[in-house]
Amino acid sequence: MNHGSPQPPVTAARSGVPEHGRVPKYYQVKARLEDLLAELGPGGRLPAELDLAARYGVSRATLRQALRDLLLEGRLRRHGRGTVVAGPKIEQPLSLVSYTEGVIRQGMRPGRTLITLDRLPADPPMAERLGLAVGETVWHLERVLYADEERIGLESTYVAAARVPRLDRDFDPAGSFYAYLREQGVLLGGADERIETVLATPREALLVGTPPALPMLLLHRRSRDAAGAPLEQVRTLYRGDRFSFTLHLGAPTPA
Amino acid sequence: MNHGSPQPPVTAARSGVPEHGRVPKYYQVKARLEDLLAELGPGGRLPAELDLAARYGVSRATLRQALRDLLLEGRLRRHGRGTVVAGPKIEQPLSLVSYTEGVIRQGMRPGRTLITLDRLPADPPMAERLGLAVGETVWHLERVLYADEERIGLESTYVAAARVPRLDRDFDPAGSFYAYLREQGVLLGGADERIETVLATPREALLVGTPPALPMLLLHRRSRDAAGAPLEQVRTLYRGDRFSFTLHLGAPTPA
Repeated sequence: MNHGSPQPPVTAARSGVPEHGRVPKYYQVKARLEDLLAELGPGGRLPAELDLAARYGVSRATLRQALRDLLLEGRLRRHGRGTVVAGPKIEQPLSLVSYTEGVIRQGMRPGRTLITLDRLPADPPMAERLGLAVGETVWHLERVLYADEERIGLESTYVAAARVPRLDRDFDPAGSFYAYLREQGVLLGGADERIETVLATPREALLVGTPPALPMLLLHRRSRDAAGAPLEQVRTLYRGDRFSFTLHLGAPTPA
Repeated sequence: MNHGSPQPPVTAARSGVPEHGRVPKYYQVKARLEDLLAELGPGGRLPAELDLAARYGVSRATLRQALRDLLLEGRLRRHGRGTVVAGPKIEQPLSLVSYTEGVIRQGMRPGRTLITLDRLPADPPMAERLGLAVGETVWHLERVLYADEERIGLESTYVAAARVPRLDRDFDPAGSFYAYLREQGVLLGGADERIETVLATPREALLVGTPPALPMLLLHRRSRDAAGAPLEQVRTLYRGDRFSFTLHLGAPTPA
């Protein structure tokens, strides 16, 4: 699917230009940098900060504010000691296919590393979400998600220990949890999801390797098994500069 | 649908605590402020900055950094000259129902004000997206979205002028564009959507009334009519501190 550039070109001349009020200087620089990024193309290396500040006739602080915006938005990426033009964001389908499949579709290699695998007693909200009694044992599986060699997210899965009692012995944490569930005879029946944007906590930023102020996409999922019983609660944080979600909608049912 | 708090309580003690490295002081203050917010409840008024800085034994600059995070995340809201605890984010279903219906479901009153209604010649990318010849006339309808009295988003719709030639005369810009399309005999058949997080431009921040650094949820939609022909291209920016998207997923089709 190709939606084209985030801002349709016909409005490009107007974005950033308030009807009333002035355009901040850093934003004017950002607009000129965007033209430069388009010229350089993905992977192109940006000139040094001092050269760019001189070229645009602004202070290094103003230039850096513009660069910071472009980095937070994923238009630029740090690469070694330099800065390069980023490629398009990964498009992850909003469906019950696994993370694995979504990343493979993008022509990238998915990976995961284990951060935490713990047994916890379900507190009242978790018990309610998973259809358990308070105090029943729950697995907490926390993994960093990779696309090729790059860390792009952090996923926490909560599932009743009674569902997959041998998770700590049988399961390869680098693999797909949904594939493992299928092997155990547990089939996914559906899910409710909620998507929001949040700032990374210092711990999350450290684990994912992002600046702390980076906006993240946070996906909450509550899934059910084929019989409709609560199965798992998942909280996945995706780098906002590297990820987008895609979705196909059918015609609305008549009201 | 109630997914509960964004972070399951069983992990609350660990979030923000890197395995290696120190927790920044502002983040420690933020964690204590979060406890205070839970005590005060939605609508509760925060004590003065100087009092809070003294209570937590930090500088006013450190306190402000913590407050800024909570404001950007929508946990706090400015109210007159004070700051109050925010209510939960609006949950907008990801479906082809209109914005109107989504907001009404939340028990709020939807509204829209017209910013722009222009005729534009389709440039090549827009022509391709809308299934037109280059140069054919396209309407650009830009509106600020309201929930109750609050500005919460900015929507740009692009549609071929030949589809709705009397848009500038017949259409009430405070109303639902999809309801208008139905009146004109144009039925929605489906859409492809893409969701990402971006920073507001100065113009967008001014129109929506948000701080410029606020993370926004950006929804791109390309919809088709009942016959499958391209119908409209929409770009909707929602305040990240006030909006979340929800979605129900069915079982995956076997691969």
